[in-house]
Amino acid sequence: MTKIFAYAIRKDEEPFLNEWKEAHKDVEVDYTDQLLTPETAKLAKGADGVVVYQQLDYTAETLQALADAGVTKMSLRNVGVDNIDMDKAKELGFEITNVPVYSPNAIAEHAAIQAARVLRQDKVTDLKMAKRDLRWAPNIGREVRDQVVGVVGTGHIGQVFMKIMEGFGAKVIAFDIFHNPELEKKGYYVDSLDELYKKADVISLHVPDVPANVHMINDDSIKEMKDGVVIVNVSRGPLVDTDAIIRGLDSGKVFGFVMDTYEGEVGVFNEDWKGKEFPDARLADLIDRPNVLVTPHTAFYTTHAVRNMVVKAFDNNYAMVEGKEPETPVKLG
Amino acid sequence: MTKIFAYAIRKDEEPFLNEWKEAHKDVEVDYTDQLLTPETAKLAKGADGVVVYQQLDYTAETLQALADAGVTKMSLRNVGVDNIDMDKAKELGFEITNVPVYSPNAIAEHAAIQAARVLRQDKVTDLKMAKRDLRWAPNIGREVRDQVVGVVGTGHIGQVFMKIMEGFGAKVIAFDIFHNPELEKKGYYVDSLDELYKKADVISLHVPDVPANVHMINDDSIKEMKDGVVIVNVSRGPLVDTDAIIRGLDSGKVFGFVMDTYEGEVGVFNEDWKGKEFPDARLADLIDRPNVLVTPHTAFYTTHAVRNMVVKAFDNNYAMVEGKEPETPVKLG
Repeated sequence: MTKIFAYAIRKDEEPFLNEWKEAHKDVEVDYTDQLLTPETAKLAKGADGVVVYQQLDYTAETLQALADAGVTKMSLRNVGVDNIDMDKAKELGFEITNVPVYSPNAIAEHAAIQAARVLRQDKVTDLKMAKRDLRWAPNIGREVRDQVVGVVGTGHIGQVFMKIMEGFGAKVIAFDIFHNPELEKKGYYVDSLDELYKKADVISLHVPDVPANVHMINDDSIKEMKDGVVIVNVSRGPLVDTDAIIRGLDSGKVFGFVMDTYEGEVGVFNEDWKGKEFPDARLADLIDRPNVLVTPHTAFYTTHAVRNMVVKAFDNNYAMVEGKEPETPVKLG
Repeated sequence: MTKIFAYAIRKDEEPFLNEWKEAHKDVEVDYTDQLLTPETAKLAKGADGVVVYQQLDYTAETLQALADAGVTKMSLRNVGVDNIDMDKAKELGFEITNVPVYSPNAIAEHAAIQAARVLRQDKVTDLKMAKRDLRWAPNIGREVRDQVVGVVGTGHIGQVFMKIMEGFGAKVIAFDIFHNPELEKKGYYVDSLDELYKKADVISLHVPDVPANVHMINDDSIKEMKDGVVIVNVSRGPLVDTDAIIRGLDSGKVFGFVMDTYEGEVGVFNEDWKGKEFPDARLADLIDRPNVLVTPHTAFYTTHAVRNMVVKAFDNNYAMVEGKEPETPVKLG
């Protein structure tokens, strides 16, 4: 009987793992909540493939231990493969898959909800409620429908974000160096980033972290923007010069800021700092501002996305162990 | 020169008052931040009409003082007229206007944003961030697009709410005793409230507080709903049996609750209770729950709505003092 072993399964992944199991009664599925290490590799002994997801490096030693346990078919539940020793994987004849897209809507919905919240000043209200100040003035809301929303980057996520904003009744404009023909026909594109900065009340970034985009939001670009602009970055930390944003918030030029990714997030996000010295004073200041919404790279974290991560990884692994072409193989170089 | 005097003008109303003034240079506009009382009525002396908005009663004495100052044309910036001594107003020959609709979108957007937040469990994340717990698990989000959204009441506000939810990609169903022909054609309506309760993952109320609707959300209706339902009441407090909601939240049947209106809100909302004994333990418990979002009847409170309240009230008053028919007169019975 075909056997797949999965590592580092979280509680919130179990329902989807069980769903996949139910639909594949011919496959034996076992799993652990432990990470894949040289020590835990032996848990996979007897399996035809493994399903994994961890920040921890897949070192030469780990890969060797897995190969020694008889397993060289490895399916990641996430997209990133930077932490795999690719030379070793190739040497050992590994076949690897990943899940490149979990849910564009998870990210786009988060961007939309957080942007709307900043406009509505609802963090101010929440903080007042917690302190039992139930007065509604003076933190008046701005309606989404009254905003010109500028979308930078019109890929999968940007397009979903545009639809949501239009559902609210906002006017949407967009900039991208690649023009989607359908969006082009509907007249969404402005000719330059400068034009978008000048016209938009809300600016949301949905572009990759390539060198040309690093610190695209900086003192100069903020200067071009409308007074009271709301800036949304659920894309990649390095797109934004955080100090420039803080200067904009301090001067009042920037009305609010949504941040799910951060230049300095590695080693800080997804950790519990309660009772410990917090390592980043600038980040702490941002978290505590009433017109800034910081989330620790959680925009992707929905049941829809996690289901896709689990189900697609298992589908990939199952295809490999059955000798079929998996949907999203990773090139080992 | 025509003269209009306005009472109880808040800071957030001033820009719209000035906008109206700019557009009507033939009218002299003066105002105070004080409420209209028997004492302050004399401030209106020499004016042709007054623009007002207050919770405080417009008593016989107040109306008499205003008439003594020579003013009997009074334009409310809000809808409610319960606090006016109508018999006295009639006796003194008052003409009164109100503003029945400020902004359906203000309410609908708030309902949508808060519903999405509850699904996303973002209050949990906010509370964790404030305590410097930056781990994303286990409070996983549910995407709006995966929900069946049941809208009870398809008037102005309900319809805007439906459009927003569809922008997210949700499946929308609706119930109303009056069927809007266009919505009917598009197949939104289910045959009964029971059917809506059985099918919806999110239920949002947009119906008036008439006797038949009081406590429509109760133990029995909650029992009919899907496990993990989200209930949204930005409409009227009495629609919901709050104790039944709490039982549903405690059992886990109800995933989350959005509340902008509350059975016991009078005398509690729009007050500052910091440092004082909070008068409603049940409300305090709801405010502090991570899966409940309470706002103190602020859904209406947007720049768009406030602008309409100010501008429409001044338009009404100006029409009256010019001897024209105001857009929204109040019948004095």
